[in-house]
Amino acid sequence: MWELKGERRAVGLALLLLLLSAAAQARAPRRYTPNWKSLDSRPLPKWFDEAKFGVFVHWGVFSVPAWGSEWFWWHWQGERIPAYENFMKENYPPGFSYADFGPQFTARFFQPDQWAELFQAAGAKYVVLTTKHHEGFTNWPSPVSWNWNSKDVGPHRDLVGELGAAVRKRNLRYGLYHSLMEWFHPLYLLDKKNGFKTQYFVIAKTMPELYDLVNSYKPDLIWSDGEWECPDTYWNSTAFLAWLYNDSPVKDQVVVNDRWGQNCSCHHGGYYNCQDKYRPHSLPNHKWEMCTSVDKASWGYRRDMTLSTIAKENEIIEELVQTVSLGGNYLLNIGPTKDGLIVPIFQERLLAVGKWLQVNGEAIYASKPWRVQSEKNMTVVWYTSKDSAVYATFLNWPENGIINLKSPQTTSATKIRMLGIEEYLSWGQDPQEGVLISLPPLPPTALPVEFAWTLKLTNVK
Amino acid sequence: MWELKGERRAVGLALLLLLLSAAAQARAPRRYTPNWKSLDSRPLPKWFDEAKFGVFVHWGVFSVPAWGSEWFWWHWQGERIPAYENFMKENYPPGFSYADFGPQFTARFFQPDQWAELFQAAGAKYVVLTTKHHEGFTNWPSPVSWNWNSKDVGPHRDLVGELGAAVRKRNLRYGLYHSLMEWFHPLYLLDKKNGFKTQYFVIAKTMPELYDLVNSYKPDLIWSDGEWECPDTYWNSTAFLAWLYNDSPVKDQVVVNDRWGQNCSCHHGGYYNCQDKYRPHSLPNHKWEMCTSVDKASWGYRRDMTLSTIAKENEIIEELVQTVSLGGNYLLNIGPTKDGLIVPIFQERLLAVGKWLQVNGEAIYASKPWRVQSEKNMTVVWYTSKDSAVYATFLNWPENGIINLKSPQTTSATKIRMLGIEEYLSWGQDPQEGVLISLPPLPPTALPVEFAWTLKLTNVK
Amino acid sequence: MWELKGERRAVGLALLLLLLSAAAQARAPRRYTPNWKSLDSRPLPKWFDEAKFGVFVHWGVFSVPAWGSEWFWWHWQGERIPAYENFMKENYPPGFSYADFGPQFTARFFQPDQWAELFQAAGAKYVVLTTKHHEGFTNWPSPVSWNWNSKDVGPHRDLVGELGAAVRKRNLRYGLYHSLMEWFHPLYLLDKKNGFKTQYFVIAKTMPELYDLVNSYKPDLIWSDGEWECPDTYWNSTAFLAWLYNDSPVKDQVVVNDRWGQNCSCHHGGYYNCQDKYRPHSLPNHKWEMCTSVDKASWGYRRDMTLSTIAKENEIIEELVQTVSLGGNYLLNIGPTKDGLIVPIFQERLLAVGKWLQVNGEAIYASKPWRVQSEKNMTVVWYTSKDSAVYATFLNWPENGIINLKSPQTTSATKIRMLGIEEYLSWGQDPQEGVLISLPPLPPTALPVEFAWTLKLTNVK
Amino acid sequence: MWELKGERRAVGLALLLLLLSAAAQARAPRRYTPNWKSLDSRPLPKWFDEAKFGVFVHWGVFSVPAWGSEWFWWHWQGERIPAYENFMKENYPPGFSYADFGPQFTARFFQPDQWAELFQAAGAKYVVLTTKHHEGFTNWPSPVSWNWNSKDVGPHRDLVGELGAAVRKRNLRYGLYHSLMEWFHPLYLLDKKNGFKTQYFVIAKTMPELYDLVNSYKPDLIWSDGEWECPDTYWNSTAFLAWLYNDSPVKDQVVVNDRWGQNCSCHHGGYYNCQDKYRPHSLPNHKWEMCTSVDKASWGYRRDMTLSTIAKENEIIEELVQTVSLGGNYLLNIGPTKDGLIVPIFQERLLAVGKWLQVNGEAIYASKPWRVQSEKNMTVVWYTSKDSAVYATFLNWPENGIINLKSPQTTSATKIRMLGIEEYLSWGQDPQEGVLISLPPLPPTALPVEFAWTLKLTNVK
Repeated sequence: MWELKGERRAVGLALLLLLLSAAAQARAPRRYTPNWKSLDSRPLPKWFDEAKFGVFVHWGVFSVPAWGSEWFWWHWQGERIPAYENFMKENYPPGFSYADFGPQFTARFFQPDQWAELFQAAGAKYVVLTTKHHEGFTNWPSPVSWNWNSKDVGPHRDLVGELGAAVRKRNLRYGLYHSLMEWFHPLYLLDKKNGFKTQYFVIAKTMPELYDLVNSYKPDLIWSDGEWECPDTYWNSTAFLAWLYNDSPVKDQVVVNDRWGQNCSCHHGGYYNCQDKYRPHSLPNHKWEMCTSVDKASWGYRRDMTLSTIAKENEIIEELVQTVSLGGNYLLNIGPTKDGLIVPIFQERLLAVGKWLQVNGEAIYASKPWRVQSEKNMTVVWYTSKDSAVYATFLNWPENGIINLKSPQTTSATKIRMLGIEEYLSWGQDPQEGVLISLPPLPPTALPVEFAWTLKLTNVK
Repeated sequence: MWELKGERRAVGLALLLLLLSAAAQARAPRRYTPNWKSLDSRPLPKWFDEAKFGVFVHWGVFSVPAWGSEWFWWHWQGERIPAYENFMKENYPPGFSYADFGPQFTARFFQPDQWAELFQAAGAKYVVLTTKHHEGFTNWPSPVSWNWNSKDVGPHRDLVGELGAAVRKRNLRYGLYHSLMEWFHPLYLLDKKNGFKTQYFVIAKTMPELYDLVNSYKPDLIWSDGEWECPDTYWNSTAFLAWLYNDSPVKDQVVVNDRWGQNCSCHHGGYYNCQDKYRPHSLPNHKWEMCTSVDKASWGYRRDMTLSTIAKENEIIEELVQTVSLGGNYLLNIGPTKDGLIVPIFQERLLAVGKWLQVNGEAIYASKPWRVQSEKNMTVVWYTSKDSAVYATFLNWPENGIINLKSPQTTSATKIRMLGIEEYLSWGQDPQEGVLISLPPLPPTALPVEFAWTLKLTNVK
Repeated sequence: MWELKGERRAVGLALLLLLLSAAAQARAPRRYTPNWKSLDSRPLPKWFDEAKFGVFVHWGVFSVPAWGSEWFWWHWQGERIPAYENFMKENYPPGFSYADFGPQFTARFFQPDQWAELFQAAGAKYVVLTTKHHEGFTNWPSPVSWNWNSKDVGPHRDLVGELGAAVRKRNLRYGLYHSLMEWFHPLYLLDKKNGFKTQYFVIAKTMPELYDLVNSYKPDLIWSDGEWECPDTYWNSTAFLAWLYNDSPVKDQVVVNDRWGQNCSCHHGGYYNCQDKYRPHSLPNHKWEMCTSVDKASWGYRRDMTLSTIAKENEIIEELVQTVSLGGNYLLNIGPTKDGLIVPIFQERLLAVGKWLQVNGEAIYASKPWRVQSEKNMTVVWYTSKDSAVYATFLNWPENGIINLKSPQTTSATKIRMLGIEEYLSWGQDPQEGVLISLPPLPPTALPVEFAWTLKLTNVK
Repeated sequence: MWELKGERRAVGLALLLLLLSAAAQARAPRRYTPNWKSLDSRPLPKWFDEAKFGVFVHWGVFSVPAWGSEWFWWHWQGERIPAYENFMKENYPPGFSYADFGPQFTARFFQPDQWAELFQAAGAKYVVLTTKHHEGFTNWPSPVSWNWNSKDVGPHRDLVGELGAAVRKRNLRYGLYHSLMEWFHPLYLLDKKNGFKTQYFVIAKTMPELYDLVNSYKPDLIWSDGEWECPDTYWNSTAFLAWLYNDSPVKDQVVVNDRWGQNCSCHHGGYYNCQDKYRPHSLPNHKWEMCTSVDKASWGYRRDMTLSTIAKENEIIEELVQTVSLGGNYLLNIGPTKDGLIVPIFQERLLAVGKWLQVNGEAIYASKPWRVQSEKNMTVVWYTSKDSAVYATFLNWPENGIINLKSPQTTSATKIRMLGIEEYLSWGQDPQEGVLISLPPLPPTALPVEFAWTLKLTNVK
């Protein structure tokens, strides 16, 4: 074991640890034990709640057919959906396999600094990249995924490493998406056949890669996925998390989500994702994150997407506002092309968020839910708070230019501004309507933002 | 000649006509003779001036590298620009030729009806497709471009024919872009070497193809290009135009532009394009058209375009307004991908024009320039007119909500509305400022459009 | 016309000549007129009859699928033979066209000097290369076959020129195979539709290329083919041959075959090929050539050929012997790979001929048919003669070691040797059996050749 | 463990066996223990010595570049030999990796029955296929070589299984070549870095695959290779062989060679190969096999091989004769193309061996070395024996037709025949020259074979 010290690729260590785990656990001083009760008790590192907004990136071999969705392989050869079978028949020679797409995943125009710059301009505080989706292709040189990784095939680059360096140069946090399961890995299929009573796949693939990712890239966040077919005991999840929290190089800062085994999601782990695009109706009592995609019909890039499935700028902003108001983080996904480009429509959407946050970020970053989350009147208002300030973001501009808020209780010291405008607004108190605020009578082009305007109220309760 | 009757592919006819042209000319009754004086005297079919707005489509083998611009081949192997040579060196095997791109021009997702629907939704009244750019690849099965056309290579489809059918189904006019010159055609190079005293290329390639295009697709418009290296006498332009105006199947409706030989542009032909993206400063006395591209840096699709070179929605609308005010047509270009897709950012821009025209089209389509074109005050106003109405489109909303127009002379019967709003606006007359109009005090989201609002004035002079 | 002087590519000249041919013919002093009577009267340059043995090379885009035969395209898309349609369906993506094979014709290992060295070692005195087969792809940069020639596509080299240089360095004669017809050329199809009353194809393609080939490569032989669908008047064959014999740069040395129009073959032109693999039963009264292929099932390379269709060494030698005995030349074909390689089995066969000719060439090169061609006894004997010598080549070694020849009439001065052995053989005369010759009693490995041994008889009648 | 019963893919079993091997070994009744002393004591199953002649097949991804040799990858990226680096630079796009060759290994024309038929016609009694060369690509669907095997990539077929079925249908024995080492496998490189003190590669790759091969294909022979960098203790060779000899499904018939670890070759294992193409000078006291290749310069197919490196028919026969005389087996290699074809020159060589063996097989198959192996006189004679017969094969036919053999001691009952000829030969005994035998005075074409004639002597000592 000692000769491995300093080894960058930690696979050896990982394998060894697994084999010797009983012994190892006896030796080390530990705060967390490998069970949910203990693991769930760990406080969430606070950077995550403060970050509020992140960018999610789905990128892999599925970006080559770039058709249907990132589940292309499964729809084609798992479910044998006719549309997918026909797509292959009409466009590729007989016998063309999914692996044959690999060499076309060139990433030739991939400039990680340009991506990171864009994400920063979008106002994101963290970035989550798919290091490996259910297809099993690793976007880093995994030593247990030979010739099915981005160094041996296609890009011939360490995508995970390169993006990480660029992201951190800009002080953004870096998260790694990782699928436990791989649809077609022969060892996984063998375990499945055995009713998941064997763990060949976990020992030979999942665990070595997870350890390798942590040791090599020191992620701030692990976004686990692909857990649903098996219990966490199959995945060895609690053992991994115990190591991650106790002994890993990121033990103090790392955040994880909740997808670590059947029935874990929404119940155990770090913060909760629950289902994809999950959105609660009232304030949850556990930190959560809403993940969604600019292309509503796919997480991975689709060549044939049309404007009709692309979220509009105001839809995105409204979802962000609502999510933060309800205590969540907002993780917005885009899918780059096989060439490593983020197409202009995605650039445009991300920059629109950034532009809005430039003015209104004060109400978002590091904010806390307020005692009331929203008022469902004509204008649609969502609240957040920070220190002594309360922020009310409204989505519809009232026809008469006067907005009324029932929840805040004013005092004589109350002051009200619109973010992006210096002057205080005049307001009055109505017994029934609450505080009535006169919005600034500006021409449309002079407003600080085009939609979702934020009022900042100080000295209210 | 008689055995060719009914021949769809008119090449035989074309060749024969050329050989027998002296005889043929003696026989037919003619209104126009093959010289500029006669040809320039032909009145422009009126559909063109009424159309005002068209969509331009640059599509060809250049859509495969999709890098730099549609001049890729020339920059690479004509000028040997290092950036292009390196691009090839870094991404393709040695010896890879431009012709080798051909098979990758698949057009596999090309659905002409979807394109036509989009162009119609954009408010376009005509569509101009590159049938053949300077690369010489024909987007239809030209019989004199064997194995370098879209039927033999790549799409294996008649792109010109398919788009034409879809466009006409929607009552849009159909124009064909055609490059006289081909950078690397060996016969063109031979003529060039001979100081253009020989016409092997014109006889064997240009003329057969032009005649074939006209006879096969019956275009409403021929958008000629690639003329600049040679006089019109080399190109046989006047003979072709005389045939086109006198005897072709489209003689009554067809419109052409002005690129038919050195020194023709801006002086002879049908309407004038002058240079690319040409914009006059005052009202010209000849019908003209401004062509421009959503991607400001290229006419053909570029994979690596970024938002920074893409015209914003308001820029496009402003250019359209200004062009029409100055008597021009506006031809807005997009470049589809090699797959036959129009990417979402282009869809979005086109639909934004369509949305604006839904409200303001009355001031554009079939309008005429007014006696004054613009007022260069703070609000920036552009005028058009139709029948007795005058339309004033202003680009900046005045802070005080009151706009003043100096040029229109009001009467007591004068009425003023904003297009998109039913109610008449109140106005007054000021001896110095002219008519003062109170704009409607609407919240930003209730305005009929987001920029470039149009006032309609009736009973003014 | 004068400005073309010195032009390497003679296409201009060719076109012009065609247009002005009436005038041109009036001007030049001529020995041959463009009709068969005159042309057939030209004596065959004597190098051809002396050469006896040549190598034929079929190389083109058909070398890429390398399946079926060089008629791949026609069998696939002309006749739609199911086996060919299935081959494409099973191995290539839908829509893959024959033109798409072009880029794969790389010729990357083509070393013309190695080929020429091999052909010389095979004892060949001339080499005939397919410059263009019925597919229309030209193995030289033809200016009227843009993007469908070996310079623009695939090899990016002038194959005809390179092989010519290498062949001539070794003093071999260089012949050019040229197909008049092209299965799928649109202009040819147009002429066909017109019952070959139009000549668009001949004017635009065939004639410019034939003139270009002659002027550029100065061939010693033109091996015409693809003539069978049309009369020579369609092909303008007699005009071309008159120019070739009277005014071309190769007028003194050039030899042509007989495929110049329907009903020409075996009747008009230079030497006769008659049908492929034609072999007369008795001595013809006109010089002829037998062409055949080492792979009996194809002229072009087939990846899947097996030993069963490959001519054995003794079969080839026997055919050569028989052909020369009957006054013919023997043109033996091999098909190189798309990479430009001649596979070992072909090398082996050619070298076996060379080895045999090293010993027996005296009986072949520059020989004449004798008054008797063969004796059909057990040993199978074929005669040739040169000066006063008579050569008898026998194919089966008699069991008793004594061979009898009935045709030669011996004298007392008669001497008999076996080529490859110094000593004279003893012989006697039998009234019934003719001359009886005692063959040398050598062990098998000491014989000069392994089969087809030649006896040289001097002073016989 | 029980739930795996009947599992075709035995990887699970293999992994489990490794983990539990201590336990397992305690349980089973065993004849051989995992050390060389015990393993070397196993008698060689006798089919192997009787077989004498086998065909070796090198096939893999190296058949795609088909240039240099099957060590292409190592020469290119291990040693960085300039010729290989240039080959890639000149023929492939930048960044093209060895893995990118995978999809081109189509095997599209592979017909295992045709191969097996050819091998049988060659007179081979066993066939050895590369299941995995040093490149690591497996020619069967190995579950621990995901996406780097012939089922997932390229052929999409189980090559090992298909050939095995065809070979056995013809009652030939089936051997599997297997490289322990893989040049570039990341786990192997990790172990190497660790001075081979770790065995991650052996546990995760080598052993699972070896067990899988044995269980799935039940080979008659395992031809181990790639052992040289590490001791057998690293490879776990003795444990594997003990299982193979004691408990495997092929324990009674299986034969192995001697490449199981550093210093094993020529000392331990089954029969000895020693080095490639090894040939002893005198009779060894251990069964051995000479492996060699028809293409002397490569084991894998090379597109550019020329006749000069291809062994001649008589060279092959002479080597076979000499090898068998010295007690060895002769394993003759050919390399199929990426398409799955065996090119004609290889067919020809193999069939030549078959033709020779048809006549002389009696002296080869199931023969034993005689007390004398050879006489190095002018004729070059090699001896074998079977039952009471002695066989003398001579390579040069004596000029006088009389051959003398010094070693056999004749008796009055001695009879001598040439194989392929019915009649007995007359002979005499000379005190100095030994037995003098009159060879049959046949014409060359009547001899039973063209070279290496065999005399059968009975009743000699």
